[in-house]
Amino acid sequence: MKFTINRAAFIKELNNVQRAISSKTTIPILTGLKLVADDSGLTLTGSDADISIETLIHSDNPDNQLAIQSPGAIVLPARFFSDIVKRLPEDNLTLDVTEGFQTEITSGSASFTINGLDANNYPHLPEIDASDAITLTGDVFRELINQTVIAVSNQESRPILTGVHFTLVDNQLLAVATDSHRLSQRKIELPSAASGTYDVIIPGKSLTELARMLGDDNPDVEMRLSENQVLFTIGDTMFYSRLLEGNYPDTSRLIPNESTTSAEFDAKGLLSAIERASLLSHESRNNVVKLTLDPANSQAKIFGNSPDVGNVEEALTPSEMTGEELEISFNPDYMKDALRSFGAAVITISFTSPLRPFTLVPTEDKENFIQLITPVRTF
Amino acid sequence: MKFTINRAAFIKELNNVQRAISSKTTIPILTGLKLVADDSGLTLTGSDADISIETLIHSDNPDNQLAIQSPGAIVLPARFFSDIVKRLPEDNLTLDVTEGFQTEITSGSASFTINGLDANNYPHLPEIDASDAITLTGDVFRELINQTVIAVSNQESRPILTGVHFTLVDNQLLAVATDSHRLSQRKIELPSAASGTYDVIIPGKSLTELARMLGDDNPDVEMRLSENQVLFTIGDTMFYSRLLEGNYPDTSRLIPNESTTSAEFDAKGLLSAIERASLLSHESRNNVVKLTLDPANSQAKIFGNSPDVGNVEEALTPSEMTGEELEISFNPDYMKDALRSFGAAVITISFTSPLRPFTLVPTEDKENFIQLITPVRTF
Repeated sequence: MKFTINRAAFIKELNNVQRAISSKTTIPILTGLKLVADDSGLTLTGSDADISIETLIHSDNPDNQLAIQSPGAIVLPARFFSDIVKRLPEDNLTLDVTEGFQTEITSGSASFTINGLDANNYPHLPEIDASDAITLTGDVFRELINQTVIAVSNQESRPILTGVHFTLVDNQLLAVATDSHRLSQRKIELPSAASGTYDVIIPGKSLTELARMLGDDNPDVEMRLSENQVLFTIGDTMFYSRLLEGNYPDTSRLIPNESTTSAEFDAKGLLSAIERASLLSHESRNNVVKLTLDPANSQAKIFGNSPDVGNVEEALTPSEMTGEELEISFNPDYMKDALRSFGAAVITISFTSPLRPFTLVPTEDKENFIQLITPVRTF
Repeated sequence: MKFTINRAAFIKELNNVQRAISSKTTIPILTGLKLVADDSGLTLTGSDADISIETLIHSDNPDNQLAIQSPGAIVLPARFFSDIVKRLPEDNLTLDVTEGFQTEITSGSASFTINGLDANNYPHLPEIDASDAITLTGDVFRELINQTVIAVSNQESRPILTGVHFTLVDNQLLAVATDSHRLSQRKIELPSAASGTYDVIIPGKSLTELARMLGDDNPDVEMRLSENQVLFTIGDTMFYSRLLEGNYPDTSRLIPNESTTSAEFDAKGLLSAIERASLLSHESRNNVVKLTLDPANSQAKIFGNSPDVGNVEEALTPSEMTGEELEISFNPDYMKDALRSFGAAVITISFTSPLRPFTLVPTEDKENFIQLITPVRTF
């Protein structure tokens, strides 16, 4: 195996594939990066057994300056190889596999020889032959991930809650996550008719990596399912993730249908006030802030308190407020995550009682996005 | 005590004074920031007992928008106070000390009440009445610090080596640091005549903080000494550091006067090559790279090796090379620190033997800056 390639084009794909490679794997060969050179180009593969990423660098794209002198395959220690490639002196590099998997990497006057591994021992990627695919733009998919993944549980005690629950019914994609203290739900009407129904749970960690990889180029993302794997195809890159097994709890009944008090806020302004209040609540044993709403007198206030340090009180300015007087306490960190997910939107917060979950929705698009937070009992 | 101030102007000075405040101090009141309001303005003080920083925000500078309603003093928990000030909603803030050192901080509709401490219990800063001062520009002083502090020891076994040795003789300021494996020495001819002679050791940690504070504004720095303290005055800010006690070793005899092999390199190019070689040496038990120089055949090469990962070999291109053939091994990290301190200069490296220290000097300014590195015996 021998090829020459443009270093910048190579590094870009190397960075993508490396997202799947962990140095903490229990399968030693997975700390390596697999390279395969053939007629179509150079294929890079990385995997941590949960996530696998494979990308093809085309020979026929002149930007890649890829010339394959002889086909073949090798597995190289990923971290080192990437460090080496990034520090090479010239615009191009040549990689040449010699005897006993020894691999020579040259660029200008620098020449590295590193010990590779037999690519035949690298695990096979899952095969997904499903032809049904959902297609979304990268921006929409990234937003959907970022809005739901915040509510995913990071406790392994209930593994099923570490994933986001995706269902597809009647051309409507629904994504829900909950850690049992809060819930986030996003609906998307698919642009083109999809066949079949989905009901899968994708690990939050996989989705976070996928969202990072989508970047700002806004590429189309194609999503395909098999029994225990999902495959996202983005251009020439394939991103595989295992699915979580089990039944996701029924979350539809958790969302209240009515409210007794509601208020409309600018999400960014409310976020700043919660951030100030949490400066003090974070110093307290039970990280809680208190919100009081008095629609009759048009008064809304937020309170934070730490016995050691002091307290904070701030008058809020909801653009609208209706219903009964209310005093409610909650974890400000859940509130901050939820508020950030709305960006600069105007939101409506609806309450039923100081001990029942309350909801946040964008005022202009109530149907498709909802955040739910369970309050904290302080009396 | 009560005042109103522009938040941006306040934060700028708060950030400077906070450099001296550590949360890990054994004297609880030193986790606090001292504020004193009087006729001249607002004085902020922070200290960790080793370093103290005091700065005056003038009432008569309109940018500060400082209005002192009543004079007084208070000590406030530094980290919180700073977090609070940075998150306040409006351009100005009002601070009001009420009963029992309770302090109210208000800005717009946000109002914090935090517990302060009696400023009378805050330690007094050292008094330095020396009138003799050395003055340098901030850029020169920062360069001098950054060039020498790299060679300071971080081992407490020989505390004296954790400082930089400053001497002033005949209008010439000499700064030397060594951790016994390497040495860095910088000379500066003072622009104006200085009276007196100096011979002091300033902790490396203090100098690093001072260099960070100097920033890019290039202010003049005035340096004054007392028996066990040094005071740097930068505009309205005073930076105090304790001195290290003891006798610094005589380093002048360590620097060789002659050489048998020497070579001239572009510092940046050589740095890149050393960085590549160290990728492999870092994986080896004894982090060492090997340099071979063969002036007769105009050949220079650098080698790095790790039994587990592989090896690297790179031909170097010195612009000049004279003397005997040489093979020498050294710690690439010392070399990297030294090379970075030269910026983009052309440097001359001079060797005497594979076991004797070698020196690096800027080719254009050999007299005033020298880095010395002890090689590693590998045979």
